[in-house]
Amino acid sequence: MNYKIVGRIISKILALEALFMVPSAVICAVDDNMKTCVAFLISIAVTLASAGLMYAVGRNAKRAFYAKEGFVTVGLSWIFLSLAGCLPLVISGEIPNFVDAFFEIVSGFTTTGASIVANVEELSRGVLYWRSFSNWLGGMGVLVFLLAIDPMGSSSLHLLRAESPGPSVGKIVPKMRQTAKILYLLYVALTVINLFFLLIGGLPFFESVCTAFSTAGTGGFGIKADGMASFSPYIQNVCTVFMMLFGINFTCFYLLLLRNFKSVFKNEELRFYIGTFIAAVTLISLNVYSMYDTIGETIRHSAFQVASLITSTGFATTDFNLWPPFSKAILFVLMFVGACAGSTGGGIKCSRVLLYIKTFFRSIRQTLHPQKIQLIRLNGEPTDEKIIRSTLGYLCAYVILILASFFLVSVDGFSFETNMSSVVSCFNNMGPGFDSAGPMSNYGGFSAFSKLVLIWDMLAGRLEIFPILVLFSPSTWRKS
Amino acid sequence: MNYKIVGRIISKILALEALFMVPSAVICAVDDNMKTCVAFLISIAVTLASAGLMYAVGRNAKRAFYAKEGFVTVGLSWIFLSLAGCLPLVISGEIPNFVDAFFEIVSGFTTTGASIVANVEELSRGVLYWRSFSNWLGGMGVLVFLLAIDPMGSSSLHLLRAESPGPSVGKIVPKMRQTAKILYLLYVALTVINLFFLLIGGLPFFESVCTAFSTAGTGGFGIKADGMASFSPYIQNVCTVFMMLFGINFTCFYLLLLRNFKSVFKNEELRFYIGTFIAAVTLISLNVYSMYDTIGETIRHSAFQVASLITSTGFATTDFNLWPPFSKAILFVLMFVGACAGSTGGGIKCSRVLLYIKTFFRSIRQTLHPQKIQLIRLNGEPTDEKIIRSTLGYLCAYVILILASFFLVSVDGFSFETNMSSVVSCFNNMGPGFDSAGPMSNYGGFSAFSKLVLIWDMLAGRLEIFPILVLFSPSTWRKS
Repeated sequence: MNYKIVGRIISKILALEALFMVPSAVICAVDDNMKTCVAFLISIAVTLASAGLMYAVGRNAKRAFYAKEGFVTVGLSWIFLSLAGCLPLVISGEIPNFVDAFFEIVSGFTTTGASIVANVEELSRGVLYWRSFSNWLGGMGVLVFLLAIDPMGSSSLHLLRAESPGPSVGKIVPKMRQTAKILYLLYVALTVINLFFLLIGGLPFFESVCTAFSTAGTGGFGIKADGMASFSPYIQNVCTVFMMLFGINFTCFYLLLLRNFKSVFKNEELRFYIGTFIAAVTLISLNVYSMYDTIGETIRHSAFQVASLITSTGFATTDFNLWPPFSKAILFVLMFVGACAGSTGGGIKCSRVLLYIKTFFRSIRQTLHPQKIQLIRLNGEPTDEKIIRSTLGYLCAYVILILASFFLVSVDGFSFETNMSSVVSCFNNMGPGFDSAGPMSNYGGFSAFSKLVLIWDMLAGRLEIFPILVLFSPSTWRKS
Repeated sequence: MNYKIVGRIISKILALEALFMVPSAVICAVDDNMKTCVAFLISIAVTLASAGLMYAVGRNAKRAFYAKEGFVTVGLSWIFLSLAGCLPLVISGEIPNFVDAFFEIVSGFTTTGASIVANVEELSRGVLYWRSFSNWLGGMGVLVFLLAIDPMGSSSLHLLRAESPGPSVGKIVPKMRQTAKILYLLYVALTVINLFFLLIGGLPFFESVCTAFSTAGTGGFGIKADGMASFSPYIQNVCTVFMMLFGINFTCFYLLLLRNFKSVFKNEELRFYIGTFIAAVTLISLNVYSMYDTIGETIRHSAFQVASLITSTGFATTDFNLWPPFSKAILFVLMFVGACAGSTGGGIKCSRVLLYIKTFFRSIRQTLHPQKIQLIRLNGEPTDEKIIRSTLGYLCAYVILILASFFLVSVDGFSFETNMSSVVSCFNNMGPGFDSAGPMSNYGGFSAFSKLVLIWDMLAGRLEIFPILVLFSPSTWRKS
């Protein structure tokens, strides 16, 4: 293991994070909230000092950088990022308990949006901004950001591969640095457009910025105690549309800019994603129509909740915990499905789910014709068996870790529904679960132990398991 | 598709079933319960007539018999078996509703043990015997029985492969017919020993026979309204031991008879099975000890419930629905794990779970060393990638079908816990679920539609998905 180079990359991440804390400090200063402002300044100082220390340790690093270093760097970066990120919350006393603050910011960076805060309206604007910004930064990934601004040569492929969501990394253009730049440019542009539409709807500037950040990262940190229930129908619809947009593979947007409409139209994952959305909205609308006054309202709430859950954002305009079991079952299944690979959304990802469904059908064909070699096609082309194998390995890891977490969280004694849905929700970076972890409740009631389990789940879910898992594997640290 | 040969095999299955109904008719006659006796006699006549008709249709069948015919024969056999098997229940009026009776007998043959009967003590002894016997016959499989008594040449491998549980069919000896004979001889011998220990404990003869049948098949149909709560501690402990024994791969018993202790001791699946049992009993005992008077009682109830759930029997000596969530979480996970391949137990099977865990660890190794070829070893030998692939395909099918069923059952409006646990319980051929489907409740409250979904789940679970699934695949019925 090349510790020095790992340290050097993490030092850059921390330096970037310190920079990103500045706007929050400014907001606090403007609001005359000196206590929180000082907390942010101290956090910036501590983060910068840590960055400097790590950079010094990382001097004269050898260039050797393999898959192992890539995964370890990504896993550790996210942990250090979260440790530094929770400092302002603890120091300011707005979330004084360390585990709670760590939970909150991990939830932010992983774009989960699960909160331990009972009433977010009691938080200061500086902290609210920081929470929403963490959603935005975590959505596209902080290492992707670093790659976009800092050339890192051979290590970039391993880093991008370890941090990007989806079964296979999508290089938009041959050069990694260009790919990272294009991704962030598209991301910024879409976020600005989202902000524009929110401002048109009359949402105040600060609320619009925070909402755009949380939507873009499909994070779901809100700034209102009632979620999005009090927002106007127009704002809610804007959020629905943009949640769905941010759940699309960003390669599609790039192809659209290149006017390559055919490739986008033929993209099976995209069709599956949109098809699932339409089917879910239709079924839920039919199931809950008696709970709302008009057909329009029914469809608005259904579409919003479905978009929120399939993209793993976790916003809510209505307490879906009160919906009938059939609708809740649909939402529960959507939590697993997730958005497209290469988007900011969470979950298993549509492309993996498609591969699982195709593997399922292949198994039937293989049963009937055991001697014939059966291929799996995606977008018309046969899929590499290596990718299928690693995608199936992912499913094993996913099921095992979810059951293990469910098991550990059950120690607290909450209901079956609370435990299962909170684990599934955190692992898929959704946010709210059902019952005691429902959209109008929060995670504050869990024990510190359960919170640590859920923190682990959120990180494992966002980084697609292996970057976090290899940190716990002895062979990672063994000398070869 | 060679319809004629399929019909001929099913005709033999039905003829056998008619024969197996005779004892029930005799019991009813002895009890002077002529209504039910006549119902059994009519059922025997109808079943024999159907068998005769099918045999006539199957005259001059060509010998062509491939994997496809094997799966279709097994799938259809079990459906016809259940259709004929529910006739006595409907005709006698003891379970007048057809869907209910069909549910009950499918639950019997698939060794699920889920019941729609509110109070089993109101059923006649003939019907109770028939229910328990269906557990016994379904446990080892009716086609295996047919193979043991009727030489079927080349078709036997395909049939045994399609009906036997586990990722790869275990031929005990090279000849299929000998294998089937040995399996049934061991099965009968163990059942008789079980019966002997129950009789020693003072359990009346009829109750002992029914209990031995239900235990041997790991079915779980009881004859008491309170499950096994009123049985003596000795009887409960006997059941615990025998449930665990019937959950062991029968090849192990054969090896023990051959004094090949080393192979048995080195069997990884067996070690995993016993290790899981001990770990689960320990954790649950620590968790529930305050609910019982003595340590002995705590361990007795823990061991019984764990044995019952890991082997998918479904007996209960205590209402585990009232246990704390941590214990329920352990039980829930055990429902998935299941017993050993090649046993009468249900679930995913320990050998598959072991393969999933090993695939999970391989994925970590593969992540760290992407260029190295990583093998998976079971019992010291590398596992064929083909078996790994089909085992992973099984996981996809399993997850997809459970989520789809959960989704369909949710239409009824029961709780999340009821729906999820009843689907998981039926698919794994367990029996009881939690909440409204708990061990002291029954499945009578579900709608006919949900019952049909659960019937499908029970059959798919017992036959390991594909024999039932291929019946619904258009390519099965297409002319090639």
